Amino acid sequence: MIVILKPEATDALVNDIVSQIEALGLQAHLSRGQFRTVIGVVGEEAKVDAEHLKAITGVEQVLPIMKPYKLASREFHKDDTIVEIPCPNSGVVLVGGNNCVAIAGPCAAEDEAMVHQLAREVKAAGATVLRGGAYKPRTSPYSFQGHGEEALKWLKDAGRENNMPVITEVMDTRHVATIERYTDIFQIGARNMQNFNLLFEVGRTRKPVVLKRGLAGSIGEWLMSAEYVLSQGNRDVILCERGIKTFETTLRYTLDISAVPVAKQLSHLPVIVDPSHAAGDRQYVPSLARAAIAAGADGIMVECHDCPSKAMCDGPQALLPETFSELMKQLAAIAQVLGKRFTETPTPRNQGMPVGHNVF
Amino acid sequence: MIVILKPEATDALVNDIVSQIEALGLQAHLSRGQFRTVIGVVGEEAKVDAEHLKAITGVEQVLPIMKPYKLASREFHKDDTIVEIPCPNSGVVLVGGNNCVAIAGPCAAEDEAMVHQLAREVKAAGATVLRGGAYKPRTSPYSFQGHGEEALKWLKDAGRENNMPVITEVMDTRHVATIERYTDIFQIGARNMQNFNLLFEVGRTRKPVVLKRGLAGSIGEWLMSAEYVLSQGNRDVILCERGIKTFETTLRYTLDISAVPVAKQLSHLPVIVDPSHAAGDRQYVPSLARAAIAAGADGIMVECHDCPSKAMCDGPQALLPETFSELMKQLAAIAQVLGKRFTETPTPRNQGMPVGHNVF
Amino acid sequence: MIVILKPEATDALVNDIVSQIEALGLQAHLSRGQFRTVIGVVGEEAKVDAEHLKAITGVEQVLPIMKPYKLASREFHKDDTIVEIPCPNSGVVLVGGNNCVAIAGPCAAEDEAMVHQLAREVKAAGATVLRGGAYKPRTSPYSFQGHGEEALKWLKDAGRENNMPVITEVMDTRHVATIERYTDIFQIGARNMQNFNLLFEVGRTRKPVVLKRGLAGSIGEWLMSAEYVLSQGNRDVILCERGIKTFETTLRYTLDISAVPVAKQLSHLPVIVDPSHAAGDRQYVPSLARAAIAAGADGIMVECHDCPSKAMCDGPQALLPETFSELMKQLAAIAQVLGKRFTETPTPRNQGMPVGHNVF
Amino acid sequence: MIVILKPEATDALVNDIVSQIEALGLQAHLSRGQFRTVIGVVGEEAKVDAEHLKAITGVEQVLPIMKPYKLASREFHKDDTIVEIPCPNSGVVLVGGNNCVAIAGPCAAEDEAMVHQLAREVKAAGATVLRGGAYKPRTSPYSFQGHGEEALKWLKDAGRENNMPVITEVMDTRHVATIERYTDIFQIGARNMQNFNLLFEVGRTRKPVVLKRGLAGSIGEWLMSAEYVLSQGNRDVILCERGIKTFETTLRYTLDISAVPVAKQLSHLPVIVDPSHAAGDRQYVPSLARAAIAAGADGIMVECHDCPSKAMCDGPQALLPETFSELMKQLAAIAQVLGKRFTETPTPRNQGMPVGHNVF
Repeated sequence: MIVILKPEATDALVNDIVSQIEALGLQAHLSRGQFRTVIGVVGEEAKVDAEHLKAITGVEQVLPIMKPYKLASREFHKDDTIVEIPCPNSGVVLVGGNNCVAIAGPCAAEDEAMVHQLAREVKAAGATVLRGGAYKPRTSPYSFQGHGEEALKWLKDAGRENNMPVITEVMDTRHVATIERYTDIFQIGARNMQNFNLLFEVGRTRKPVVLKRGLAGSIGEWLMSAEYVLSQGNRDVILCERGIKTFETTLRYTLDISAVPVAKQLSHLPVIVDPSHAAGDRQYVPSLARAAIAAGADGIMVECHDCPSKAMCDGPQALLPETFSELMKQLAAIAQVLGKRFTETPTPRNQGMPVGHNVF
Repeated sequence: MIVILKPEATDALVNDIVSQIEALGLQAHLSRGQFRTVIGVVGEEAKVDAEHLKAITGVEQVLPIMKPYKLASREFHKDDTIVEIPCPNSGVVLVGGNNCVAIAGPCAAEDEAMVHQLAREVKAAGATVLRGGAYKPRTSPYSFQGHGEEALKWLKDAGRENNMPVITEVMDTRHVATIERYTDIFQIGARNMQNFNLLFEVGRTRKPVVLKRGLAGSIGEWLMSAEYVLSQGNRDVILCERGIKTFETTLRYTLDISAVPVAKQLSHLPVIVDPSHAAGDRQYVPSLARAAIAAGADGIMVECHDCPSKAMCDGPQALLPETFSELMKQLAAIAQVLGKRFTETPTPRNQGMPVGHNVF
Repeated sequence: MIVILKPEATDALVNDIVSQIEALGLQAHLSRGQFRTVIGVVGEEAKVDAEHLKAITGVEQVLPIMKPYKLASREFHKDDTIVEIPCPNSGVVLVGGNNCVAIAGPCAAEDEAMVHQLAREVKAAGATVLRGGAYKPRTSPYSFQGHGEEALKWLKDAGRENNMPVITEVMDTRHVATIERYTDIFQIGARNMQNFNLLFEVGRTRKPVVLKRGLAGSIGEWLMSAEYVLSQGNRDVILCERGIKTFETTLRYTLDISAVPVAKQLSHLPVIVDPSHAAGDRQYVPSLARAAIAAGADGIMVECHDCPSKAMCDGPQALLPETFSELMKQLAAIAQVLGKRFTETPTPRNQGMPVGHNVF
Repeated sequence: MIVILKPEATDALVNDIVSQIEALGLQAHLSRGQFRTVIGVVGEEAKVDAEHLKAITGVEQVLPIMKPYKLASREFHKDDTIVEIPCPNSGVVLVGGNNCVAIAGPCAAEDEAMVHQLAREVKAAGATVLRGGAYKPRTSPYSFQGHGEEALKWLKDAGRENNMPVITEVMDTRHVATIERYTDIFQIGARNMQNFNLLFEVGRTRKPVVLKRGLAGSIGEWLMSAEYVLSQGNRDVILCERGIKTFETTLRYTLDISAVPVAKQLSHLPVIVDPSHAAGDRQYVPSLARAAIAAGADGIMVECHDCPSKAMCDGPQALLPETFSELMKQLAAIAQVLGKRFTETPTPRNQGMPVGHNVF
C-alpha cells in the first residue's frame, strides 16, 4: 500500500501515520520529495484497512498494490482452474483450460414438452449443458415470474434424458436449498452479483456456480464477488460476462469483450460469455458468440426457442435451434484456431483432461 | 404502442400482425409511408407484451407510449405523495410536498455508546431521522459485515431516546421480519434495487421504504422497482438518488442531480439524495447536499462520525457532527428559496400538513 | 415521425399541430387513445425538424422513424461498399465485402530508419497498409506532438518502397492540403469524430477516409459523421471502432465489439477495429484483434514497434513485429471461418473482386 | 511516480530500471515486499515519461503522484483566479472568487432583430454576458450551420448596445482571427475539448476562453485541455461543465454536478455550468441551474428564446425570458447562502474586487 500525503502534511502528521502503521506490525518506508511525502507500507497489506488511512486528515490518496481478492487471484493460483461438472448419468463436462462449454436452452422453462424438445435440439447442435429459468428476475412486477419448483422438475428430467447437467438461476437465499435438489449448477444473475448473502449461501453448497457480471460491476468487483463464493469453500466458480451499461443503447447492453482476457489474466477461473442478454436481439448473437470464443472465452451460454414470438420472456434474443447449430460449427472452428475445443459428449470423470482445482 | 415494420415487410406479414393485435381486443391503426409501415396500437397497452411483437420477423422496433409503471406514475396520481413516518414517542416526520427531511447517523452502528452519542449530535444539528447499519453490504467478504440484531437494538433505543424514527438497511429476504421489529423505515440499498423478491417482501410490510437507485439503474428501472413495493400495497416509498457508475472516477460515483427533477416529474413519490455514498469523500458532501436541495430534493441522508479515521466502514465520507450542523443551516436557507422547509421537531400526526397518500 | 402529445393536450393544440404538419405538405394520421393522442407523420420526414415539434408546449415526445443519415445508410444502399485504396506502385487494397485489411505501423513516425524498418516488418507479417503518425493528438501540451511534414515524407517513401498505401491522422483543417500530398488515406481520430469542419474538408478530397468512432460517440452519431464526409462527394469512408469510455477502467477504453455487427447492419460502409488504442496494453491486443475479425470486422489497425519501451508515444500498446506476425496467422484462419480473407499482396485494379461503390 | 513491478520481476530487471531512472537525474527508492517490488521515483516527475516505464516488460503499474497539469493546478496557484472580462463600453464582468456570472442569449443568432431583442431581455433579467452562436456544431450535415460572420456583427452590436461582453463558439482554427475581431470571449464547445490545435490558437489570443467539458472528458483531461490554453500565455480560462454521456438517457446528457467542487478543488480556475445543453429540455433547466450555484459554481450559461418552437436550433431547451428572470432571483438568493453574489452591472475595472490572476 502506498500512502500519498497532501502537500501541506506536517512532520507531526507524518510521524503519527508512521506510528500507526508500525503499531500494526508493518514497515513504513518514507520518501520525501519536493512536492509530496510518500509512505510505502511493506508487510501483509490486508492487515491495514485502506479506508482508515484514507480517512485521516492530511492523506491525499491511498494506493493499494495488492489485489483485494486472494482465492480468485491468478497470483496465488497460477494454473487455470478447470471446473468439472458431473453429468446426471455419467461423465463430466469440463470448463476451463482448453475446454470450451456450450450452454443452451430456453430463457424460461415454459412447459414440460418445450423443455424436453429444446434440450434434445440444443444437444444435437452441440450443447453439453442445459439452461432454463424457473425463477425469473423481471423488471416489472406484472411480468411472468417463472414456474418455480415445477419448472425445476422439468429441467431435471430433461437433463437426465439427455445426460446434460442443468443450470438455473437462484435469486433468493430462501430458494437455495430447494434449487440445490434439482440443479447441477447455480446461476447468479447480473442483478445479484453483489447480493452478498446469496453469494455466501451458494458458496456453502458444493455445486458449481456461474457468476454473471453485474451491469455496473467492475472487473475487480466481479472477482471480489467470486471471492465471496470461494471463501466459503466452493472452488467451482465460472465467471460469465453478459454486457454492461454504457451510453451506447442501440443494443440492450454493451458486451465488454476485453473482460474476457482481462479476467483470465487476473484470475485462474474460467470465463464464459452470454451473448443473448448482451445483445437482446437474436440477429447479433452469432457475431458476439464468435467474438467471445476468439477473445479466449471458455464457452458461451445462449438462449434458444422454437418459436421466439411466442416465448414467455426475452423472445427477441432467442436463437432458433437451427441457427444455433450453424453457429456451433463456426465456434468449434474458431476454438481450434486457439488450440481449444468444444466437447460434444461428456468426458469420463477423472480421465483424459487435467482437473485444475486439484492443485488449487 | 407503436410498431414499426422493416422496409421489406410484406402485406401478408402486415395483415398477420394486425390480426394478432385485434385478437387481443385492441385496435390497430395502419399508416403506410413511402419507406415504412407503422402500426399504432390503441387500447390498454399492458395487454400486449412488447416482447412478443418485437420477436416477430419483420418488426423493426416497438415503441411503447405509456410508462410501464402505474402506481408510481405521476400520470395516475397527480399530487405529491407525502410520506408520514411515525416517531417512536409521538408525532410524525413528513417527507414530500414542501417537507424536507434530514436523515443522519453513522454508516455502521459500531457500539451502543457511539450510536447514542451520534443520535444526540445529529438531532441537535437538525436531523429528524436516525440512520445506522446493522447488516452491511461489503465488497469484500473479509470486511466487517455489521453487528446484526444487536446493532438494531442500539438503534431502536437511541431512536426512542431522541424521538427519532430509525432507518436501517435490509439485504436478505430472511431478515425482513427481524428488522421489521426494530426499524421504522426499511432501506433498500443500491445493490438490491433489482432484488425483486426483497422488494416484494418489504412491500408486504407497512413500514416506509427508502429505495436507493442502483449503480446502473435507469430512472425508469428505478420506478419499476418502486412499483414492486407499491404493487404489494405499501404506498410509502421514498426514492433515494446516490450516484451512478460512469467513466468519471475522481469521486466514487457520479451523483445524477438531474434524477431529482426527472423522478419528481415522472412520479409523485418523494425523492431524497445521499451525497455521502455518491462522493465517498467528506470534503464534497456539503456541496452535493446543497445541490440536492436546490434541485428540488425532499431531503438528504448523510453519514456522520465523531472520529472518521476510526470508523469501521466508510470513514472517508463521514462528516463530523459540527460540519453537519453548519451544513444544515445552509440547507434550510436553500429550502426556503424553493418555498420548502426542514422540520426540526416531529409534526403531530394528522395535523398541520396535508398527507398525500390519503388521496392516493 | 411519431408525435406523442401530453395527456392534457387540448383539441385546439392537436388541431394546431396537425395544421403545422399539413402546411409542410405532409399527412398527419391522428390516433386518439384513452391516455394519449398520437400523430403519425407520413411523407418525407426530413422536411420537418423534430426539434420544432419537440419545442411545442403539449408535445411529450417526438419519435423519428427514419434514420437521420441517408448516404451512409444500408437502407439506401443495400450492398456492401468495397473501398479500393490505390497502392503507390501498382494494384489496390480492397476493404469491405469479403476483403479484410491489416493496417500496421508505428504510433508515431519517429525517424526515417524506424519507419522503413517497421514498414518492411509489418509487410512481411501480412499488413498491406502502413500507418504512422506525423501530427499526434496528445492529452498534454508538454508531450511529443509529432514530426509533422518531415514524418509525412518518411511515410510516403516507406510506402513506395513496399508498395503499401499509407494512412496518417489529420487533426486540423489547415493541414488537409499538405497531408493530402503525402498520404493515401486520411485518418480522422476519435477526438475529431465531431470536428465537423474537418469532416467537410476531407469529404472534399478524393482520398479514402478512416473515421474513428469518438469516445462518447453513439453508433448513430458516428454514422452522421460519416454522412458529413459522404455528403461532400467522397464515398470512400471506412468506419473504425476503437473503444468507448465506460465505468470499466482496467483497460484504457472499452472496445464495443457489438458496434461491428451493428454498424454493418445499419450501414454499407466497411468497419475495421483498432485494438491497440482500445486496450492501451499490448498483452490484450491479440485477443481483441481476434474478436474483431470473428465479429465480422473488415480489418484491423494495430500499432507495432521494435522497442516499445523507447517509443515516443503509446509504447505500452505496441506489438513487437513477431507477435504481430503470429497474430496475422490466427486472424487469417478466423476470417476463413467467416468466408472472408486477408489479401497479402495488392489486387490489380478493377480485377478479380467486385468493387462496391460502382453501384453506390 | 511509483513503479510497481510484476511478482516475477528478476533482480536484473530491477537493477536495469533503477539505472534508467538514475540516468535521468532522479532518485529511485526501492522497497521489496513479500509479493511485490516497488520503486519510488523522487525528483521532477515530468522528466520521466510514465509510458516509457509502463512499456518495459516486468512493470505492472506506474502510478503518477503529481498531477500532469501545472498552470491549471490549485497546487501551484492557491488562490482562486478571478477572470476579468472587459465590457464593450466600460467596466468589467468578474468571474470567480465570490463573483457569479450569468451568461444568456439565444442558441444561434438567427437575425439582427432577435439578437437585439433577446439581449435586452436577458440583460433586464440579470445576465451580464450575451451568448449567441454564429458557427454551429450540428450532428447532421443537413442542419442549419449558423449565419457566420454576419451573426458575429449582430452580436457585437447588441453587446455594445447593452454594454455586455459577447461570447461565441469557435470550431475551426481558420476562424480564430475573424471571430477574435468581434467577440469578447471564445467558447470552446464540448466536441472540441480535445481539439488541441484549436486550444493552442485561442491560447495565443488574449481574450478569455470558456472551455466546455467534453462528453467523455474526465476532469483530469479537461484540466489538461485548460493547460493547453494556459501554456500559450492566456491565463483567462473559465471551465464549463455541461453534462457527460452515461447510460441514463432520459435527458440528453448527465450533468456531473460533482465536477463543480472537484474542479474547483483541483484547480484555481472559475467553473460555470451550462444547464441548457445538459438537460436538452427547458423544464429541467431551472432545477439544474439552482443546483449548480448551490454546488459552488461561479456562474451559469443558459439559452433563451422568445418563441422556442420557432428556434433554428435547440428550441426544446430554450427558456422564455420571463422564466429566466424568475430563475435569476432564485440563483441570487442561493448565491447569497454561499457568501457569493451575481453582479447586475459591470464593475469598474480594477476596483472593488480583487483580481486573481495578478498573483498568478
